[in-house]
Amino acid sequence: MPAMASSVSARPAQSTLSGFPEWLPAGRVIEQHFIDTLRHTFELHGYSGIETRAVEPLTQLTKKGETSKEVYLLSRLQADPSEREQEVDPAKQLGLHFDLTVPFARYVVDNAGVLHFPFKRYQIQKVWRGERPQEGRFREFYQVDIDVVGDGALPLHYDVEAPLIMHEALSALPIPAVTIHVSNRKVAQGFYQSIGIGDDQLIEVLRVVDKLDKIGPEAVAAELVEAVGTTQAQAQAALRLATICSPDPQAVREAVAQALDGAEPTELLATGLDELSGLLTTAARRRPGAIVADLKIARGLDYYTGTVYESFMAGAEDLGSVCSGGRYDSLASNGKRTFPGVGISIGLSRLLSRVIADELVEVSRAVPTAVLVAVTDEEHRAASDAVADALRRRGIATDVAPTAAKFGKQIKFADKRGIPFVWFPGAQGEEDSVKDIRSGEQTPADAQTWVPSDPQDLRPQLRVRGA
Amino acid sequence: MPAMASSVSARPAQSTLSGFPEWLPAGRVIEQHFIDTLRHTFELHGYSGIETRAVEPLTQLTKKGETSKEVYLLSRLQADPSEREQEVDPAKQLGLHFDLTVPFARYVVDNAGVLHFPFKRYQIQKVWRGERPQEGRFREFYQVDIDVVGDGALPLHYDVEAPLIMHEALSALPIPAVTIHVSNRKVAQGFYQSIGIGDDQLIEVLRVVDKLDKIGPEAVAAELVEAVGTTQAQAQAALRLATICSPDPQAVREAVAQALDGAEPTELLATGLDELSGLLTTAARRRPGAIVADLKIARGLDYYTGTVYESFMAGAEDLGSVCSGGRYDSLASNGKRTFPGVGISIGLSRLLSRVIADELVEVSRAVPTAVLVAVTDEEHRAASDAVADALRRRGIATDVAPTAAKFGKQIKFADKRGIPFVWFPGAQGEEDSVKDIRSGEQTPADAQTWVPSDPQDLRPQLRVRGA
Repeated sequence: MPAMASSVSARPAQSTLSGFPEWLPAGRVIEQHFIDTLRHTFELHGYSGIETRAVEPLTQLTKKGETSKEVYLLSRLQADPSEREQEVDPAKQLGLHFDLTVPFARYVVDNAGVLHFPFKRYQIQKVWRGERPQEGRFREFYQVDIDVVGDGALPLHYDVEAPLIMHEALSALPIPAVTIHVSNRKVAQGFYQSIGIGDDQLIEVLRVVDKLDKIGPEAVAAELVEAVGTTQAQAQAALRLATICSPDPQAVREAVAQALDGAEPTELLATGLDELSGLLTTAARRRPGAIVADLKIARGLDYYTGTVYESFMAGAEDLGSVCSGGRYDSLASNGKRTFPGVGISIGLSRLLSRVIADELVEVSRAVPTAVLVAVTDEEHRAASDAVADALRRRGIATDVAPTAAKFGKQIKFADKRGIPFVWFPGAQGEEDSVKDIRSGEQTPADAQTWVPSDPQDLRPQLRVRGA
Repeated sequence: MPAMASSVSARPAQSTLSGFPEWLPAGRVIEQHFIDTLRHTFELHGYSGIETRAVEPLTQLTKKGETSKEVYLLSRLQADPSEREQEVDPAKQLGLHFDLTVPFARYVVDNAGVLHFPFKRYQIQKVWRGERPQEGRFREFYQVDIDVVGDGALPLHYDVEAPLIMHEALSALPIPAVTIHVSNRKVAQGFYQSIGIGDDQLIEVLRVVDKLDKIGPEAVAAELVEAVGTTQAQAQAALRLATICSPDPQAVREAVAQALDGAEPTELLATGLDELSGLLTTAARRRPGAIVADLKIARGLDYYTGTVYESFMAGAEDLGSVCSGGRYDSLASNGKRTFPGVGISIGLSRLLSRVIADELVEVSRAVPTAVLVAVTDEEHRAASDAVADALRRRGIATDVAPTAAKFGKQIKFADKRGIPFVWFPGAQGEEDSVKDIRSGEQTPADAQTWVPSDPQDLRPQLRVRGA
C-alpha cells in the first residue's frame, strides 16, 4: 500500500462573483476552527454571544456619514409602487450592516431595560460593503467583535482586558504571532495641544501623520507645514511623537517628554499618559509581548475617545491591521442614558484569506469523517450501517461506502477524502477489522470498543505549515 | 441567603423591525445550543459543513419563477449611473438568497471539478425573504440543510439516510418529538395514472388535495370534479389515497391496492411503492417511530422527483412542517453533467421562536460564566485577575467583578446573571474561598484545583420546561 497524502489543500472555491469569497470544504474546516477557537476564548472570559439582524434602517447606518458609500440597500423585487416610495424614506429604507458596532449600539439601546451592565458580548457574523473589490477587500466578510459596554460609566481596566482577551484568542490560532499596538486619543490630542496645535487642526494633522508609512517623514513634515499650516517645529515634534513605539510605560513617558522638547504638557496629555501607562503595566504583567504602545497610530483617533488598537501579524504587515478597535465614551445613547464602550474587532475573512492563499495552515482532511465502513454487498448494507451507528454513538464520525464497489475502490473513496480508517465488517461469525490506510496496517476490531491509537485522528487536524 | 432564581427567561429581544427576529443573550444560548447539536450530529455522519455567499445573481434566484416575489434585491447606495444600468441586467443584479438549495446547487456546479461525489454537506445560514411578515413568517431566518449530491447517479439508500440523520439530530434537541412523514412523487403520479388522471392534470390535482386539512374531504372532492374535471370515482380514489398514513410498508401496499379499487397499477406506481417500502423497512429497523408514510402530502411533489419529506412536532402541528425536503433527479446540471440530490431542511428560526415563545425550554443562565471572582479593592484587582486566569486555563469560564463594590453588590452582580459561584481571594497568606450563591455554602478553594461538585454548572444548561 503506497503512502497516502496526509493533508488536503484548502483552496478557495471557484468564485464567480468577485468580492464574495467561498471556501471548499477544507477551507471551511479552517474557518470553522478559527471561529470555534475564538468563541471558546471569549466564553472563557464571560462574554455572551449575540447575533443581530443583517439589516438596519439607512438612517442608522449613515449616522457617521462617511461610510454611507459602502452600504448595500435592499428592495423587494415585487414591491408595489406605494412600497417603493416608502423605501425612499431613509428611516424605512433598509441596508445591510457594514460592521457589527453600529448594530450592537442599536441593540444595546433597544434592550437597555433588560440587559445587565457592564454587558460583555462577542459577535461573529458576516458584514457587507458595496465597495469595488480589490486584493484583500471583500464585499462580504466575517467580522469577529468583542465589546464591553457600561451604563453611564465603564471602568478603565476594560481597556486592557479587551485587547488581552483578543490576543489570547489569536494566540490559540495556528497563525504567526500578532502584536497589538495601542495609542490613546488623549495622548495624541494632548500632545498636539501642548505644542500649540489647536483642536480644530487635530483631524487634519492625524490624516497627514497617518500617511507616514506610505510617504515617509519628509513628505509628512512638508504636508503638515504647507497643507495644514503647522510650523516646522510643530511638524518635527509630530514626527518625534510618531516614532515612539515601546511596551515599557516609563520609556513611553520619557520619549513623550523628549518629543515635547520643553513644551508644557496639558492636563489632557497627562491623563492620556496615565491611561496608557496603566494599560501597558497590566499588559506586561498578564501577557508579556502582547501589547506595545505605538504613537504613530492616527487612524480611528477621530472617533475613538481614549484607547485605540491596531494589530499586525508577523510576516504579514502588508495586510495592515488585522484587528482594530478602541474606546468610545458614548458607544450608544438613548437621550437619557449614555453607554460608553470599549471593543476590538478582527477582520476574519481577510486574515483567513491570507492564511489560506499562502498555505500557512494545512488541514489533515476536508471531511469530519474518521472511519469509512466498507459495504461487502448491497444485501449486507444493514451490517455496515449497524457498525457505523455503533461508532457514532461513541462519538466517532463515520461514513458508509456509497456502493458495494470493489474494496480497492472503497479504499480510494476514503483516501481521496483523507479519511484515515476503513472498516471491514466480518462475514457471518467472523471478526470485523479496521485498516489504517496511511500505514496499511489492518487489525481486528470491535465497533463497541475500538478507538484510534492516536485520538487526534478523530477530528481533522490543522497544522502550521512547516511546523 | 435566599434561594436564587435557577433559570433565565429567554425572551426575544426588542424587535424594532418586524420580521427580523433578534434574541436576548439567553435566547441566543438556546439558538447556539440547537446549532451546535445539529452540527455535531451531521458531522458524526460524515457531512462537511460549507457556507455559501449571501447573494446570488437574480437569474440564479428566479430560475424556478414562482419564488421571485420573495427576493430582496441589492443596490449600492452610492452607485454611479452606469452601475445602476448594470443592475437592471438580471445576470448582474444581485439578490439575497431565499433558501440554501439554490446556492448549494450553484456551488456544486461551480466546483464540480474538485468536489468528491457523492458529496455530503450540511449548511446552517440565514436566508432572507421579502415577504410581508406574519406570525411564524420571518424576513430573515436560519435554515439548516443537509443534502447528498451525486455525479450522474445517487443510490436510493440516501433517501432514507437523510431523514434518519435529521431525526437523530432533532431528537438530540430539548423539544417535543418530531415525526417525519414521507411520500413519493412516483407513488402519487403513478396512482393518478392508474386511475386515469393524466400527467397534464397532476399538478392541479395535487394543488387541490393539498387543501384537504383546510377545507375537508367533501370540498376537495367537489373541487376535483368541478374545477379540475375528474370523475366522482377518481375524486373518491384520490381521497382514499390521501387517508393512507402508516409506518408499515405492507400496510401501505395493501391500502394503495384497496384505494385503486381494481384499477391496474402502472409501472411508475410499482416503482414508487418499491422505493417507499424500502425506505420504510430500513427506517423501522434503524429508528423505529421516526418515519411514517403519509400519502396526503402533495406539496413539493411538483418539483421533487421521488421521495418527499414533511415533519411535525408533537403539540405544534399548527406550525406546519418544521423540516421538509426530498429528492431531485437533477439538483444541478452544467449541461454536460447532471447532479441528482436528496436533502432535508429545518426552518430553525420558526421552530426556535415557538420553543422560546411557549417557554418550552429554560436556560440556567444567559452568560457562559461559571465563576465571578470578587475584587476586594482596586489595588488588589491583579490578585483577582490571577485567580480568573488560573480558572480559565483549566477551562472554567470566569469573569471578574467590574468594580470593588461591597461584596453584597458583587454577589448581586452574579445573581442577576445566573452565575452560580462567587470566588473570594484570600487576604495575604490566607486561603481563597468560593461560595455557591444558590445554596449559600462557602468553602475554601484553590484556583489550581477547584472544580464545581456538579460539572453541569460549568456551562449554561437547557431544560425542557416541566421535565
